[in-house]
Amino acid sequence: MTTSQIPEEMNAVVLDSYSGVEALRVENRPIPKPGPNQVLVKVAASPINPSDLAFLEGSYGFKKKTPTVPGFEGSGTIVAVGSGMMGRYLMGKHVACVSQGEGDGVWAEYVVTSTTLAFPLSSSVSLEEGAMSAVNPLTAMAFLDIAKAGKNKIIVQTAAASALGQMVNRIFQNNGIQIINIVRREAQADLLKKIGAEIILNSTDTNFSKELKETCRQHQAHLAFDAVAGPLTLQVLNAMPHHSKVTVYGGLSFKAAQADPGDLIFQGKSVDGFWLTSWMGKKNLLQSLQLWQRAQKLLTTDLKSEVRERYPLFEAQKAVKEYQNQMTGGKVLLVPEME
Amino acid sequence: MTTSQIPEEMNAVVLDSYSGVEALRVENRPIPKPGPNQVLVKVAASPINPSDLAFLEGSYGFKKKTPTVPGFEGSGTIVAVGSGMMGRYLMGKHVACVSQGEGDGVWAEYVVTSTTLAFPLSSSVSLEEGAMSAVNPLTAMAFLDIAKAGKNKIIVQTAAASALGQMVNRIFQNNGIQIINIVRREAQADLLKKIGAEIILNSTDTNFSKELKETCRQHQAHLAFDAVAGPLTLQVLNAMPHHSKVTVYGGLSFKAAQADPGDLIFQGKSVDGFWLTSWMGKKNLLQSLQLWQRAQKLLTTDLKSEVRERYPLFEAQKAVKEYQNQMTGGKVLLVPEME
Repeated sequence: MTTSQIPEEMNAVVLDSYSGVEALRVENRPIPKPGPNQVLVKVAASPINPSDLAFLEGSYGFKKKTPTVPGFEGSGTIVAVGSGMMGRYLMGKHVACVSQGEGDGVWAEYVVTSTTLAFPLSSSVSLEEGAMSAVNPLTAMAFLDIAKAGKNKIIVQTAAASALGQMVNRIFQNNGIQIINIVRREAQADLLKKIGAEIILNSTDTNFSKELKETCRQHQAHLAFDAVAGPLTLQVLNAMPHHSKVTVYGGLSFKAAQADPGDLIFQGKSVDGFWLTSWMGKKNLLQSLQLWQRAQKLLTTDLKSEVRERYPLFEAQKAVKEYQNQMTGGKVLLVPEME
Repeated sequence: MTTSQIPEEMNAVVLDSYSGVEALRVENRPIPKPGPNQVLVKVAASPINPSDLAFLEGSYGFKKKTPTVPGFEGSGTIVAVGSGMMGRYLMGKHVACVSQGEGDGVWAEYVVTSTTLAFPLSSSVSLEEGAMSAVNPLTAMAFLDIAKAGKNKIIVQTAAASALGQMVNRIFQNNGIQIINIVRREAQADLLKKIGAEIILNSTDTNFSKELKETCRQHQAHLAFDAVAGPLTLQVLNAMPHHSKVTVYGGLSFKAAQADPGDLIFQGKSVDGFWLTSWMGKKNLLQSLQLWQRAQKLLTTDLKSEVRERYPLFEAQKAVKEYQNQMTGGKVLLVPEME
């Protein structure tokens, strides 16, 4: 193991049980040591994403043994590496990092991750931008790739004003694919109009179902990305023409995704899911790197995230609550150096 | 048009509006005339299927203009043909016939259907057996083909004691594929045991969810055929391991099919639908004929249907109610000659 000057202990946000934000506290922990093909990252910043909220509630794809450190993505500097060639190459570099396996997450002063989940940042990308460069930007690019692979000229998306939803709007506009955006507040519609979105429907409008159906049929939208689930999945699937698909990637409604049996049976429609981790898992190393490079080039334009607030680790509870209260209008970051 | 002796008028069951069994009556109608590539069938028998019940309620895949004659399948003798070579070949033959398009259905003394939807019966198959030879037998064979194509060694099915469910048990057993059968009454479990079913779970048992999960995981069941929809779809999808699929082919619960967003997102699971009409539509003529020949050979064994009751057309309401009250334990047939 190669190391620079690293203290023995660090502050880390810890989740004691899967009971949400109230189960978060900060504790002093030994700094973990990277094993073979692992790196130790001194964390610069880490955002709170919808996937983190799901993790805190125990409704994410997997549970780690508690107590555990949450936080799926962040950025920082590689300050120690385990054995392995890739680690030596990465030493000292600014990276975006993703924590997905069994180990602790990024809401800490230091995190250990695999060399394959530490992506070097180009010099044009700041550490703060880099902190939000994995989950949302790669998801937006995945949606674009999926839409293109299916030759879709238009797609539907729910929760369209989220940080991700905005990225999807920008990157799809610049790739000539239209979007039927579904929001639930007028302020969200205004926000999307400002970034050039042309089709925006408010799911709380009286005529929403009818308008959605007319719009989907008129534009022949056959694919939807849905972060909400519940009855909205049914509405969107029902609105689209034969052989359409809703791809669920979030459960913001905290309800089961629904589908009309008639739509499934007689209209050849289907419902599946999207998880960035499995999507990336199907890429080989070269494809992952190419994707990462394409994403980085767009980080200050199409795939830009706004930052609304920055909090030190010891205010993690406050930060999470702030984000829960308003999930649009800029990301909330945890910044260990503010301690 | 070639004709034998055909009267001018016939009795037909007519649906006045999509409001269920009470909207059925019998009326005297002119006997329809076959157009090009069509045949006129003198109906011998026609079963009441779950798809007919859905049609009466207006919840089937399409609605015809009312008043209309219901009945999707039956058997009879071809007594007149329109122009076209195939029609001349079929003249005088005993056929199973399917009514799927815009025209009137089979619950009548005569029905016009397309030459491609009239299947000659081999001499070993009676007209009564032939009347139930299309919908259920071809569906059971479709399920077998789908299961084999996906290399499934075991599947799950709901409503497992239905006429179709029993066929599926027999034909899968004889093809070396196991079935996890889900029923909702002990009598149904007993019925399935008698035909050799080995794994039977009762969805009303207290431990059903747990047992279903253990059984699906232990046997690695990745595919389910679901006639019920509603929360049962969620339970079955949730019980199966990663990358499993529930294929909905009925909506007996009259509820939306449900799926846990976490199952869709993190476990790569999906929900789609099956409709015999679209599945058959993907086959070419040769494939359809081969399938039909395979099905006919099995009509007196694996794909046998029991008959519980026979009714004349003018008792159609009574017949439908009888079937609604008890959908297992033998089919209910409409037999025009009983007039």
